[in-house]
Amino acid sequence: PDWNIVEQEGMKRLERVFKFPDFAGALDFTNRVGKLAEENNHHPAILTEWGKVTVQWWTHKIGGLHMNDFIMAAKTDELF
Amino acid sequence: PDWNIVEQEGMKRLERVFKFPDFAGALDFTNRVGKLAEENNHHPAILTEWGKVTVQWWTHKIGGLHMNDFIMAAKTDELF
Repeated sequence: PDWNIVEQEGMKRLERVFKFPDFAGALDFTNRVGKLAEENNHHPAILTEWGKVTVQWWTHKIGGLHMNDFIMAAKTDELF
Repeated sequence: PDWNIVEQEGMKRLERVFKFPDFAGALDFTNRVGKLAEENNHHPAILTEWGKVTVQWWTHKIGGLHMNDFIMAAKTDELF
């Protein structure tokens, strides 16, 4: 599967790594995910590195995963 | 100190967490650091979250820290 469930600080998170040919492409994707986050008022962790972006979705309020996180993951895929 | 030395994947990295009042402020800082990285052709790991950005500088080629990483850390501070 593209998304994995990882556990961090005792909370399950949905995580996917997206690959790019350079840093600029990665940063551009980070901005698209950021715009999506603001539009939905739900904010992921986005790790931007040379050639890749790692996105994690989870719901802090409930300490783990909510249906909405899976929806946000699907929307993130559409931006790729 | 503002910057800490952390070890990840067997390599020492310089790390600092920068705080912001919201997600937009954090993402804006990520873009400023990204621009600095492109200008210097040296690329950090930038973790963007609601209200904070964690920046790590290291030199993959030498598997750790080079003088240049400390210079990039200082330049990152100037963007804050």
